[in-house]
Amino acid sequence: MMDAAPPVFLAVDSGGTKTQACIANVNGDIIGTGIAGPSNYAALGPVEWTAVIMEAIRGAKRETKGRFARAWIGSAGVTCNTDEKEAAAHIASTLCIPLDTVQVTNDTQLLCTHLATKGIVVIAGTGSVVQAFQKDTHGLFAPILRVGGLGPLLGDEGGGFGVGREALRAVLYEEPGTERLLAAILDSWHLVSKEELLAASYAHIGKFGIRATQSHIAALTPVRNAKHSVH
Amino acid sequence: MMDAAPPVFLAVDSGGTKTQACIANVNGDIIGTGIAGPSNYAALGPVEWTAVIMEAIRGAKRETKGRFARAWIGSAGVTCNTDEKEAAAHIASTLCIPLDTVQVTNDTQLLCTHLATKGIVVIAGTGSVVQAFQKDTHGLFAPILRVGGLGPLLGDEGGGFGVGREALRAVLYEEPGTERLLAAILDSWHLVSKEELLAASYAHIGKFGIRATQSHIAALTPVRNAKHSVH
Repeated sequence: MMDAAPPVFLAVDSGGTKTQACIANVNGDIIGTGIAGPSNYAALGPVEWTAVIMEAIRGAKRETKGRFARAWIGSAGVTCNTDEKEAAAHIASTLCIPLDTVQVTNDTQLLCTHLATKGIVVIAGTGSVVQAFQKDTHGLFAPILRVGGLGPLLGDEGGGFGVGREALRAVLYEEPGTERLLAAILDSWHLVSKEELLAASYAHIGKFGIRATQSHIAALTPVRNAKHSVH
Repeated sequence: MMDAAPPVFLAVDSGGTKTQACIANVNGDIIGTGIAGPSNYAALGPVEWTAVIMEAIRGAKRETKGRFARAWIGSAGVTCNTDEKEAAAHIASTLCIPLDTVQVTNDTQLLCTHLATKGIVVIAGTGSVVQAFQKDTHGLFAPILRVGGLGPLLGDEGGGFGVGREALRAVLYEEPGTERLLAAILDSWHLVSKEELLAASYAHIGKFGIRATQSHIAALTPVRNAKHSVH
């Protein structure tokens, strides 16, 4: 029996804000794309994560035909070998393709595709990470040093959330010269007084979880950039 | 019609870890106590918060009779006037007592009962806050300065979570002299390698939320105190 479907190649960029799937043919032409919501692996766990990834893949498959020869998912929140293996097993099983055709890595690794032998990858979205990579003897990029990428509870200093957090800390601790910054934050969140700030910062946790709260605080970034008093 | 039930007085200490209700008679004797789970107001919102508070109150009422002449709920996560009014309205309505007999404040204010005219309150549990109070012209303690109490995303530097967070950052960034600390943390969390630490730090967020994650990290405090390398 011949397999009539042509081989195609899948890549998924799974982030804390959104998920993007992309299918290419053997010539490297992009023949299908799909999108889904946030899919941080640490936040969702393997089952829910797989569901979101599959939603993005289904979107990409609507536009194309073919069997997946190789699949690569680069995902935020994938931080160790155990994560990589567990996630790859879920995806391979759900797509019904061999496990050794699926590769799951941290999303920073997706950005290595443009590197020759070594380089530094910087992601600064809601969260942030800076990671150095070097090509190993198998021709694969291995991480050699990481700063940041510790998530909202332990770090994320360089992302939008980190910027918003520092802005909130500055006005909550009434640092000198932050009067205009306070006014801009209150204006942005439609609040009247400083006393409402702390409750407003955490208002999303109960209802929507830490990721929504992190995005809510990250959204203060333009306010800080535009209106921080010079002192 | 006479009201036969004697007047009794209710106090509730509502914290991020547990909730304790206490009923006293006119002589100040404690005649009933009850306990319930975590009830941080910011984390739960008014409806769920009221349900937890009521569970503690029902526990205390099982042991006693009487009508509530006054009720005071000091709660973690109550951070502004809007919170105080909203929370008091929910409790008064649920207990069917007049709104002006219910007082809701931040939990730091409960600790002012031993102060004469002014003083400093320190809470260092899972989270942390240091707050100075001074008696105002109405004889009530008003907060005059606060440090900390910004919650797990913005602060909480002095609590168990803050200590655990610094321990995790130190080993994740491979600070000199933290080899024994790393070994102690891996041992405490039953992990094999440093690469599993970040995933383990956030493992509770998807399933149990930020408060459980915060407690999970706070539980590292004795590990750090006992085993941090001297350098």
